[in-house]
This record gives sequence, C-alpha cells and structure tokens, in this order.
Amino acid sequence: MDDAAVLDVGGKTLVLTHDMIAEGVHFLPSDPPGDVAWKLIAVNLSDLAAKGARPIGLLLGYSLGEEAWNRAFVEGLRQASAHFSAPLLGGDTISMPPGATRAFGLTAIGEAGARVPSRADAVAGDTLWVTGTIGDSLAGLRIAAGEVEGPASLLARYRRPEPRLQAGRALAPLVHAMMDVSDGLLIDAGRMAAASGLALEIDLARVPISRGYADLFGEDLRARSDASIAGDDYELLFSAPASEAGRLSALSQELRLAFAAIGTASAGSGLRMTIGGEPVPLPRSLGYEHGIS
Amino acid sequence: MDDAAVLDVGGKTLVLTHDMIAEGVHFLPSDPPGDVAWKLIAVNLSDLAAKGARPIGLLLGYSLGEEAWNRAFVEGLRQASAHFSAPLLGGDTISMPPGATRAFGLTAIGEAGARVPSRADAVAGDTLWVTGTIGDSLAGLRIAAGEVEGPASLLARYRRPEPRLQAGRALAPLVHAMMDVSDGLLIDAGRMAAASGLALEIDLARVPISRGYADLFGEDLRARSDASIAGDDYELLFSAPASEAGRLSALSQELRLAFAAIGTASAGSGLRMTIGGEPVPLPRSLGYEHGIS
Repeated sequence: MDDAAVLDVGGKTLVLTHDMIAEGVHFLPSDPPGDVAWKLIAVNLSDLAAKGARPIGLLLGYSLGEEAWNRAFVEGLRQASAHFSAPLLGGDTISMPPGATRAFGLTAIGEAGARVPSRADAVAGDTLWVTGTIGDSLAGLRIAAGEVEGPASLLARYRRPEPRLQAGRALAPLVHAMMDVSDGLLIDAGRMAAASGLALEIDLARVPISRGYADLFGEDLRARSDASIAGDDYELLFSAPASEAGRLSALSQELRLAFAAIGTASAGSGLRMTIGGEPVPLPRSLGYEHGIS
Repeated sequence: MDDAAVLDVGGKTLVLTHDMIAEGVHFLPSDPPGDVAWKLIAVNLSDLAAKGARPIGLLLGYSLGEEAWNRAFVEGLRQASAHFSAPLLGGDTISMPPGATRAFGLTAIGEAGARVPSRADAVAGDTLWVTGTIGDSLAGLRIAAGEVEGPASLLARYRRPEPRLQAGRALAPLVHAMMDVSDGLLIDAGRMAAASGLALEIDLARVPISRGYADLFGEDLRARSDASIAGDDYELLFSAPASEAGRLSALSQELRLAFAAIGTASAGSGLRMTIGGEPVPLPRSLGYEHGIS
C-alpha cells in the first residue's frame, strides 16, 4: 500500500489516502499536541499534492488522552484544516485502556485534475526534479531535540510542514512520474525507480539545501547526503522530459518555488548516486523504512 | 461526530465513515483475528447502510502485530471485502512499540442514492421500525465467553455481523429518519429522538427477538430489555409515516427481512418505554456510551 488510491466518481477523479501515527513512533508524548495534529493532516495532504489533487475533506480517528492534550490537538486540527481548506467531515473517537500507546488515523479525500501522475510514470531520458529544499525538517528535528540552535523557520519545517498542494496541481499535467518525499529523498527516488522499471541517477551536488540548513550543517557533500536520507521533507519529486524545462522554469517563477534538476532516468534499474558525474556509493541506509513497504 | 459524512461529487452523493477499534476495548487479543477484521469492516458498512449507500471502497490503518495474527487478519479482511463487494483501496501499516495496545482504523466510502436519510429526520406521528432481531449479538457474546451454550448462528451474529446494506438502499427513499443500531436499541433510539427534536416511545413487548435468543434467555420483558440495551446488532432503526406501512410490508417480504413496528414519534423530547401501552421506567444504562458522543 504505497500510492494514494484513485477512484472515479461521476466523471470526477477522487484521490484517497489514509495515514496512521502512533505515540513513541511517529510523535513523542512531549511534542506539542497542536503540531502533532498539523503534521497528521500535512502528511496526508502531501499524498494528495503528489497526485495533483485539491483536498475536499478529512476524516479523523482519534484516541482520547489527557484533557488539555485533547484540547490542544483539536486546536491544531482546526488551524491546519482552515489553513489547507480541508474541512473535517467526521470520524471516530475512542478511549484506550489506561497507559496504552495512543494512535491516530487520518483519511484525506481530494479531487484531482484530468491527469493523475503516479510514481511509476518515469520515462527513460526524463530529467529528475525536486521542489524546494531538502533537509530542513532534519534541521528542525535537531533544533527541537536541543542538539543545535537555529531559526524558528527551520523548526516550523519540522513541526508544521507545508505540503506542496498548489505546486502539485500545477505540475500534474506537465510531469511524467510524481511522488512526495516523505521518508527521505534517496529512498523515495529508489521507489520511483523500482515502480517505473528504470534506473535513476541523482547528482548529490545538485540536491538543493536551504541557506538555513547550510548555516547549521555546511554545504559539503556530507551535509547534502545527510539531508538526502532524512525524511519529513514533504517536497515533490518528479520526472519530466527535458523539453519541458522551459515551462517548468516559468511555473517555478510563478509559484515562487524553486525546482532543482537533480538527476536523470535511464534504461536499467535501481538508484545510482554521482557527485559531479562521478559515481559514488550509496549510503547504507537511504531513509526511513516502514514495517511493510 | 456521529452520522457518516455526506459529500457531493460530480452529481453523485458520497458517504464516508471512519471507525477505529482498539485491543482491550473493542476486541480482545484472544478474539479470532479474521473476525476482528470482518467486524471492523461490518461496523463501517453498517453506517453506509443507514444512509442507503452501496460501498465503493475501503482504506485501512493497521498496526502490525505477531505474524500469524497479521496473516489471519488479512484473510478476514479479504473475505469481508469480497463478501460485501467493498474493495480495499489502500491505507497505511505502522509498527507500534513492543507491548503497545494495537489500534486499527477503517474508512468506508459509499455511494448513496437520491435520498440520504439522517437520524434527525423523524416526524411527529411516524411509526418507529427496526429490521431483523435485536439481542442476537449479545447471545453470541455470551456464547463466545463460554457463559452459555448456543448455536453457531448466534455466535456468527456477534463475530461476523451482516450490515443491512441491501435493506438500507431499499428503505432510504421510503423512510423519514434512519440510523443503524450499534450501541444498543434504546440508546440509539434516544439519539434519534434528540437529533429529531421529538419524543420517541418504544413498546418493549414489540422489540423483536429471535427464536434462538428466546431459547437461551426466554422472551419475557426482562429478556427483551436486556436485548434492547445490548449493542452490536447492526440492524436499522427507522421512522416512517403510517401511510407507508403497506409498502414497507411488501419490501420486507421482497427482502425476506422482518420489519417490526416498535413505537411512535410525537411532539416532545426524550425516550419513553411502555409495555403494552403502560409507561415503564427506562433501564439505568441504555447501552454503550462512547468517550465523546
């Protein structure tokens, strides 16, 4: 169960996705409850963004906790729901046994346009692109953990990520393959390669990092490699024919969102990494592995 | 968050519902995993049935357990999905920390007809009806717990309930209010009364019980009262004008499913119980109360 589900209803294309998070795995009891709520919504909306879909509703499965926690969670839900124009339509609330690990689920329903890209749509010869910058959420995590000091903007990339909904809708008609980067740029690119039945090559030197990330961790290849295997970016990874470069550049300016050309697709299989054209070995871990992929 | 959500998409009416279940609350670690899966699906489809909707898809949020348990759960999912023609479209699988209370969520998406009844639609003067029989799931629970011996058919009503999907679709255009009976006939009727802003009166002597239930627990008023406050029936409770009695009777025969007239709606508020017309006090507990109603 990887991509979001696509359903045709009355001539419209619905996109449906469901993500679940558990205490101690996806969030800590000490995390601000409003941020947990925001992230639960953002993670699901990022799946819609990758399909070029606009959110039309959310359903929540909530396990009750301490009252102040519940209140703050609901406030975060309300904020994210309003911010992303994604109305909360319903759901379920349950009480867990005392001391139980709490878990939440969210279903997001979106309406897609005429074309719904998948991660399996890359074509040999395509250029591989990524939106925005990679690694800011890692920086935010290290700030949240008290390991480094850094600006609130990086902390926000970790706590209150902004799925690329507008970019996803604009890109869907132009791209071949598209997916969101949630578990790490390299592991997600590897999944795109496998789903498309192609080889993908990523030039590490071209992986886009932010000024803030560079200030904290430098901008050498080690810093870029760390960024590429960290998760929670919620950027879009997409492939497009080289002939689309002009339209993509115009769209990037219109959206005020950078698109970085980081690699290419070719016949073959698997993920390869290069630095300025020279092959380098992949890191041992490419990103966050789920229990079942 | 009570009724299922209703969404208009491309001239079609979608019904969406999400229920969550947790180990130790809604199921026991010793319950057969395939039955837990079946029930998770059935509970959600019962919400669709009450809206007169036909299932078009399911999304699952699953927390991994022991391997044999996972396999048996997936097999139960597969069976229920095929039995109810409700395809599993996707979802999410997570690993919980060791020893954690496991929780599952299911979203069901259905397509409704031209009329989507709600629990708030009762009209003064309506007759109150319930499909099938009440209390069989209670009997099944007592058999499962080893408290009584009884037939497999009653155990199945508890373990593998059959939501009234076909009846719900046929009833939706005829009825005023409709809802499923999941937490107990009396508590659910009380919710219909509150949502409709009316008083509902139920004649306990007319609450339909099965031959099997009567064989185990008798058919006196105490037995009927116990049945009326037990949950997990997944029958449909509906109100309709007295003038519809003929069409309802014909439909009942066509569906080979009994409809019992158990009461009436009138101006006022709250739930009243009678026995052959004589008012009797309500039981102290009317059924299963959720953490948040």
